[in-house]
Amino acid sequence: MAEKKEPRTTLPDVREHPRFAGVATFCRFPLIESVVPGHQPVDWAIYGVPFDGGVTYRPGARFGPRAIRDASQYIKPVHLELGVNIAEIFSLADAGDAPIKPYSCKDTIDAACGFALALGDPAITKLLAVGGDHSIAYANIKATWQRRGRPKRGLAMLHLDAHLDTVESVWGEKWGHASPLIRAIEDSLIDPSRMLSAGIRGPHNATADLDFARDHGVEVVTYDQWRSGEGTARLDAFKKRLGDDEVYLSFDIDCVDPAYAPGTGTPSCGGFTSADIFALLRRFASVNLAGADIVEVLPDRDPSGVTALLASHIIFEILCLAAAHSNR
Amino acid sequence: MAEKKEPRTTLPDVREHPRFAGVATFCRFPLIESVVPGHQPVDWAIYGVPFDGGVTYRPGARFGPRAIRDASQYIKPVHLELGVNIAEIFSLADAGDAPIKPYSCKDTIDAACGFALALGDPAITKLLAVGGDHSIAYANIKATWQRRGRPKRGLAMLHLDAHLDTVESVWGEKWGHASPLIRAIEDSLIDPSRMLSAGIRGPHNATADLDFARDHGVEVVTYDQWRSGEGTARLDAFKKRLGDDEVYLSFDIDCVDPAYAPGTGTPSCGGFTSADIFALLRRFASVNLAGADIVEVLPDRDPSGVTALLASHIIFEILCLAAAHSNR
Amino acid sequence: MAEKKEPRTTLPDVREHPRFAGVATFCRFPLIESVVPGHQPVDWAIYGVPFDGGVTYRPGARFGPRAIRDASQYIKPVHLELGVNIAEIFSLADAGDAPIKPYSCKDTIDAACGFALALGDPAITKLLAVGGDHSIAYANIKATWQRRGRPKRGLAMLHLDAHLDTVESVWGEKWGHASPLIRAIEDSLIDPSRMLSAGIRGPHNATADLDFARDHGVEVVTYDQWRSGEGTARLDAFKKRLGDDEVYLSFDIDCVDPAYAPGTGTPSCGGFTSADIFALLRRFASVNLAGADIVEVLPDRDPSGVTALLASHIIFEILCLAAAHSNR
Amino acid sequence: MAEKKEPRTTLPDVREHPRFAGVATFCRFPLIESVVPGHQPVDWAIYGVPFDGGVTYRPGARFGPRAIRDASQYIKPVHLELGVNIAEIFSLADAGDAPIKPYSCKDTIDAACGFALALGDPAITKLLAVGGDHSIAYANIKATWQRRGRPKRGLAMLHLDAHLDTVESVWGEKWGHASPLIRAIEDSLIDPSRMLSAGIRGPHNATADLDFARDHGVEVVTYDQWRSGEGTARLDAFKKRLGDDEVYLSFDIDCVDPAYAPGTGTPSCGGFTSADIFALLRRFASVNLAGADIVEVLPDRDPSGVTALLASHIIFEILCLAAAHSNR
Amino acid sequence: MAEKKEPRTTLPDVREHPRFAGVATFCRFPLIESVVPGHQPVDWAIYGVPFDGGVTYRPGARFGPRAIRDASQYIKPVHLELGVNIAEIFSLADAGDAPIKPYSCKDTIDAACGFALALGDPAITKLLAVGGDHSIAYANIKATWQRRGRPKRGLAMLHLDAHLDTVESVWGEKWGHASPLIRAIEDSLIDPSRMLSAGIRGPHNATADLDFARDHGVEVVTYDQWRSGEGTARLDAFKKRLGDDEVYLSFDIDCVDPAYAPGTGTPSCGGFTSADIFALLRRFASVNLAGADIVEVLPDRDPSGVTALLASHIIFEILCLAAAHSNR
Amino acid sequence: MAEKKEPRTTLPDVREHPRFAGVATFCRFPLIESVVPGHQPVDWAIYGVPFDGGVTYRPGARFGPRAIRDASQYIKPVHLELGVNIAEIFSLADAGDAPIKPYSCKDTIDAACGFALALGDPAITKLLAVGGDHSIAYANIKATWQRRGRPKRGLAMLHLDAHLDTVESVWGEKWGHASPLIRAIEDSLIDPSRMLSAGIRGPHNATADLDFARDHGVEVVTYDQWRSGEGTARLDAFKKRLGDDEVYLSFDIDCVDPAYAPGTGTPSCGGFTSADIFALLRRFASVNLAGADIVEVLPDRDPSGVTALLASHIIFEILCLAAAHSNR
Repeated sequence: MAEKKEPRTTLPDVREHPRFAGVATFCRFPLIESVVPGHQPVDWAIYGVPFDGGVTYRPGARFGPRAIRDASQYIKPVHLELGVNIAEIFSLADAGDAPIKPYSCKDTIDAACGFALALGDPAITKLLAVGGDHSIAYANIKATWQRRGRPKRGLAMLHLDAHLDTVESVWGEKWGHASPLIRAIEDSLIDPSRMLSAGIRGPHNATADLDFARDHGVEVVTYDQWRSGEGTARLDAFKKRLGDDEVYLSFDIDCVDPAYAPGTGTPSCGGFTSADIFALLRRFASVNLAGADIVEVLPDRDPSGVTALLASHIIFEILCLAAAHSNR
Repeated sequence: MAEKKEPRTTLPDVREHPRFAGVATFCRFPLIESVVPGHQPVDWAIYGVPFDGGVTYRPGARFGPRAIRDASQYIKPVHLELGVNIAEIFSLADAGDAPIKPYSCKDTIDAACGFALALGDPAITKLLAVGGDHSIAYANIKATWQRRGRPKRGLAMLHLDAHLDTVESVWGEKWGHASPLIRAIEDSLIDPSRMLSAGIRGPHNATADLDFARDHGVEVVTYDQWRSGEGTARLDAFKKRLGDDEVYLSFDIDCVDPAYAPGTGTPSCGGFTSADIFALLRRFASVNLAGADIVEVLPDRDPSGVTALLASHIIFEILCLAAAHSNR
Repeated sequence: MAEKKEPRTTLPDVREHPRFAGVATFCRFPLIESVVPGHQPVDWAIYGVPFDGGVTYRPGARFGPRAIRDASQYIKPVHLELGVNIAEIFSLADAGDAPIKPYSCKDTIDAACGFALALGDPAITKLLAVGGDHSIAYANIKATWQRRGRPKRGLAMLHLDAHLDTVESVWGEKWGHASPLIRAIEDSLIDPSRMLSAGIRGPHNATADLDFARDHGVEVVTYDQWRSGEGTARLDAFKKRLGDDEVYLSFDIDCVDPAYAPGTGTPSCGGFTSADIFALLRRFASVNLAGADIVEVLPDRDPSGVTALLASHIIFEILCLAAAHSNR
Repeated sequence: MAEKKEPRTTLPDVREHPRFAGVATFCRFPLIESVVPGHQPVDWAIYGVPFDGGVTYRPGARFGPRAIRDASQYIKPVHLELGVNIAEIFSLADAGDAPIKPYSCKDTIDAACGFALALGDPAITKLLAVGGDHSIAYANIKATWQRRGRPKRGLAMLHLDAHLDTVESVWGEKWGHASPLIRAIEDSLIDPSRMLSAGIRGPHNATADLDFARDHGVEVVTYDQWRSGEGTARLDAFKKRLGDDEVYLSFDIDCVDPAYAPGTGTPSCGGFTSADIFALLRRFASVNLAGADIVEVLPDRDPSGVTALLASHIIFEILCLAAAHSNR
Repeated sequence: MAEKKEPRTTLPDVREHPRFAGVATFCRFPLIESVVPGHQPVDWAIYGVPFDGGVTYRPGARFGPRAIRDASQYIKPVHLELGVNIAEIFSLADAGDAPIKPYSCKDTIDAACGFALALGDPAITKLLAVGGDHSIAYANIKATWQRRGRPKRGLAMLHLDAHLDTVESVWGEKWGHASPLIRAIEDSLIDPSRMLSAGIRGPHNATADLDFARDHGVEVVTYDQWRSGEGTARLDAFKKRLGDDEVYLSFDIDCVDPAYAPGTGTPSCGGFTSADIFALLRRFASVNLAGADIVEVLPDRDPSGVTALLASHIIFEILCLAAAHSNR
Repeated sequence: MAEKKEPRTTLPDVREHPRFAGVATFCRFPLIESVVPGHQPVDWAIYGVPFDGGVTYRPGARFGPRAIRDASQYIKPVHLELGVNIAEIFSLADAGDAPIKPYSCKDTIDAACGFALALGDPAITKLLAVGGDHSIAYANIKATWQRRGRPKRGLAMLHLDAHLDTVESVWGEKWGHASPLIRAIEDSLIDPSRMLSAGIRGPHNATADLDFARDHGVEVVTYDQWRSGEGTARLDAFKKRLGDDEVYLSFDIDCVDPAYAPGTGTPSCGGFTSADIFALLRRFASVNLAGADIVEVLPDRDPSGVTALLASHIIFEILCLAAAHSNR
């Protein structure tokens, strides 16, 4: 662990403002407009995209960002296992919510992408989007891709999900929560040959559902393969293959089992535990993150609040992965 | 209704930031540090006091301010019945949460009072505190009293509650949610001869429970008296007696029936409906408000969210009462 | 109000055992086996009958007694409007739960009746049964009737309910929650000519559903009649007609609207508010109660706990009615 | 009440299929494809429109039809106050759900309208649509208007709601839950001079929010006007003015208070009770209904189920109003 | 995986009827009366038995079938791991709910058994019963046994449960949810020497509780044995021993941990995860299923819906096991 | 397993008082004042300490004892894996709740300690405290230490928790739920060199958070270490090192994952499953328990009741560990 350094992120004084006090921002980070000059530009901007117009089943993820802000108040900055203090290594901010066009997935993606492009210093500030349904990932992927130099072959990607999200279209619509990754691959924002999707499981509509991913060279690790032990070796091989390439992380909360994340719109039984997913993420501790999203938290289906709590913890883990890379 | 004026309060553009988007502030008012210079000083500062260490039964009201911020997103600025637009008449802001000493009611009151005293322009800005349990009312009453010129006989008060809150002490402690008004009367912050408590009801510990109020000339309108029709006349007489004196309004959400406000710590069956309480408040439309509080919202007992929703509506009604006075 | 007397009921010291502490008994009354000799025999024994095998729709009222014990901790002994302190006037006890035969309504009724007959001093102790579904009322009515001298024409009855509960049989079974009152009338435990059912409403299976009650002279006050004002006069006339006759009170929580009592098995929209029912009960303040029951609280359908809270308040109101009579 | 007639609607035998058994259809009516020949064509077809893509705040009403089907199992056919048995007077059926285009409000309206037009016998069968959000009302209004002979000046309308739903457009979209009635008036499906909107209340965006309704001669009865007693006279005058004209009834569940209907997307505190709304509806007992809808039930915000229960009861009341007219 | 075949089951077109639309049937299978002639007789009839009169603790499983129908809408036909498409291999139908005698476990069993015997073609159609409490399993076992040729030594059985369900009687009653398997063994419907019970755990009343099972040769794999790894070998040996014998599968949802299935009446901490149980079931992929049941889902204790969701997924897994056998 | 012996604990007859009947005591054990002479003194007294004034985040654990009493009704006396019947080996009683000073953590600790010291026979009766927040553990540790002969170096301790609870002070207060173990070590009630804390995880405020524990020789097994397999060996070594020393067990429910125990005030994602923790505890089957506590159950965050259920099961497991030691 790095020795004690000056904090780069101003956290509220817990003596006067306990964790249950104050206007709730992600992990108690300052609002981006309140970041002190010495902490600018921020290293990561966390922002919400409260849109759920791309869902195929239960809506309500538009309330995800608020629920995650509330649940994230108990997050603290030090990660014991990875040995990092994110508030020392990074300047972090809550950049508020992106503008939304509730009746149009495509317009929302455009608006959110434009908003994200303007956050902080494009050369420095990385983007962590909080959904909202998975359709909004495209906006953050595109903004990240543009800010990271528009790499020709696209970004590498680590994708954790119960679903592949590579459906051509649903109800005649190409933009929706079943399709962000097919669009990102088509538009060369993501390089399918350096993409891995883990946690895939559940009933499918057709055996062809996996064809697009397989045909494009996406490495698919089903939950069953992971469980059998086979997946772990493939995850490690994937990480090795990545080297220090910049990687985008897309985290759909439904990759974990509904016991751990009931508050989501298309839950799929039989998935990771929270501990599984932390262990899986920590295998990628030294990875070079270009950006990330966490999506599909649906507060109205989360009566005990465990889903939003887990999502807030995933934000922390993602920032710690990045901190571990910076800290090398 | 006044003709269309320039807004004094900057509300977020609902086209880009729908009501489910953005960091939640009270009624979507700006954070006090973000109020544009032309709107300064604010007319009313709404702030939270997330403290519940003064309760005698169910705790959890410390999460009241956050729940009310979330629930208040659907509030709009125009009141049809009173014919006012609060965003045109007032500059309004969310002043965040007061500092809290979770283990000491008295220290919290001191800290919250100090915080409140420093908000906006003491000569102009009025204070609306959002609890937290009822003990925190003392802090706002004291700050209001100081800022309104420390009137010798104390402020007049309209008190809506199922309980009188004039208990000498509980478990040997003088500061708690059963005692804010006895303390305020003892300290001459409130003038009991110009105070009315309405909605009182429920089982009592002893017949002497009402003695303090009656001995000090507080007008007590029980719920049963109000229901019988007798109370309305007394409310009107009280209002007439007040004239244009400055009045403090203390609103305990348990004055309404648990069907309307299940999310509270010491609910009492058989009270006002929401419509009753709106009608009651609107009888005081031309009253001269010095300050106000709304307390005792306990989100964990509010599974359908109706309590926090009602509380947010009460904030709106209170501001409209004040606007109607300003608008005369 | 009577002057301060020695308490007849030993309530726990709230300084050491706040309302959230201790093994929960009804209204914090002592267990009947712990009543001090000087307080014996008790005036009222409150006991549970955790049976729901007589329902026709949603089961779960077997958990009613426990939920009501928990919810009743906030009950205090003094009734302001009636001017009585039940703990001074009465010795009161929680007599535990009656024995139950979960698979047989008739056997449960027999067992509960036998249990009730043995409580306290038959000549003095009155019985307040807490359900369970409405079928258990028969047991308490029968035990009350036997202990009050087996009056030939039966007891007078005040019945508050959305349903008449005079169905001949359901699914071939004569004992169930739709039939306790037809059985009690057939067995001359209740005198239909001195019985009033108030609050009746909702869809019926057939227009003949009211025939039994009307043919036997039961006074039926539908909710609509009560609302129109007509019912109140009939309630007063009924009370006058009763004089000082002993009356049994059967209170089905579904007489109030589902907004006030969602936690019940066969809820019927459009009923009394809590305040309505308190006002209605208090019209019977000087009535001579022989016994009472409160039934049909179903905790699993009561997420905010308002139903059990109201039921506990109704127990208090019933005891206060009796206290007001004793106190004349 | 009419004497016992042969039933026109086949209800399941409650002896073998208690109310908790069987695939849930609206009020246990047969599926339209299972109606026996002798009961064809049906008098009323009740169908769902599970669409919520028109909302401006909380989504989830797409699950309204299923929740209402489940909750309606306790509905029985006889209305005591109106003296009708709907199963004798009418042949009734659950016509399933209309086809839905989840990503387009306008396409959904077209599809649902087409579906509705084809139900039963256009000259006989009347349409009761169950939402879904209020935007779907347009589809049922249009289908009703076409089937009732395309009356030139449009249908008369009774509209119960907290909101006027005459907003020109939201987020640039003319089709949505804030706009069905402006569209229906523009298209001459509804005659604003014979339209009454009751229950209007709550904060507004601008004082001009009521202008469209007033400018077009819609009679607006705010909740406050109704409460003051003034509204009742206006309701009666409206009914008298209608004579035997065919009237369409649009019922938004948010016309009642959130205590009675928490499960809705844009709840507004301070409204009708269930009993109020039943009384209001029954004033229209002899009205000549052309069609009806009930909308805006959101099950995920309805933890105790009272909202769906009330909605199912409103369906019953609507059918009884129609039965009372047929029964004259 | 088999190549693309014509579907044998008509699933609703998801374009017009999304998963949240339509009258809910099990997994969106057609009602048995709507199966097109070319798909008759069905291979599996799934039917509900909404009875909970056999429980010893929490009732409410009578609402299990409806909750599982609702939750099963997200089920799709293809199983990736087993490589089968159940809608191609089988004709499947929702056969509605069996007739119920709510006040008698034995009568319900007789009625349900009679109902099941008449479903589809006895020689072809297999039966999957959805509870209801575990007592109803007897009815389906008996009907299956009769339809599979009344095998003399009884059917083999795979039993997944926290409890053995071989209690002689409870409260003097031989028919109840603690006793279905003792009755089935006594009546030679099940062959205990070819029966395995897995998942057994939790506190017991007496050490003799396992005696019946052990004395009759039932193979008992406690959860702890399974966890230690020992159980898996025994499961495989059991499967091998079965060969291609017809096996009945009885699945009590409480075999999984309450974190995964809180909505059940007698939950037992420390059990399988969903992923565990899927893995366990898939070990039996080539087994020859004679029939199955899934029981003990209690919706009122399932606020986030994960229990009903899991149950619907188990139905899918069971049908896939059968499909895998057919597909060999 | 020991052969059938006379019971030492009088459990209610389940035939007459099913598990849903009767005033709820811990595991249905008799109230300590009702223990028959032949069963005195009791071997273990289980008592509640309904205090939550020491929390740093969510309050509400004051309702823990009542919720656990209710949830524990399904506990039975026999542990299959350990082969013990606690009701035969031990005399067990519910000793009610300790006196509480809700506004002072230190005063509550003193009062609870005094109460505990007086329970049963100090030389025989062991103490199991049920929280309340973790601060109350100090009271039970101190009482246990005094009754076990005030061992100079303090008691050995097994501590299961997500947090170390060795914070010097919070908000200037030394007594609170983050500090019980630092106080117990400082006061030599606990011997840190024979103490093991397992399950530690989650974000920390500073890397120094573990310093106190490490500096004092506490063995810390993080969840990650346990998961990697390393921890198990260390647990076994610790147990071996203990020999037959008396050990105190402090069980914070947040040691398990929020999926298994959502109802707690400071939940930490990524922890033990219930089955993990049972397995871990059972490794200590032959340990010599001096006393124990189970803390931090918060019922208002436990909508499906799984947390209180698990806590009741942990009480059973703890008593079985002790029984296994007695039974050697």
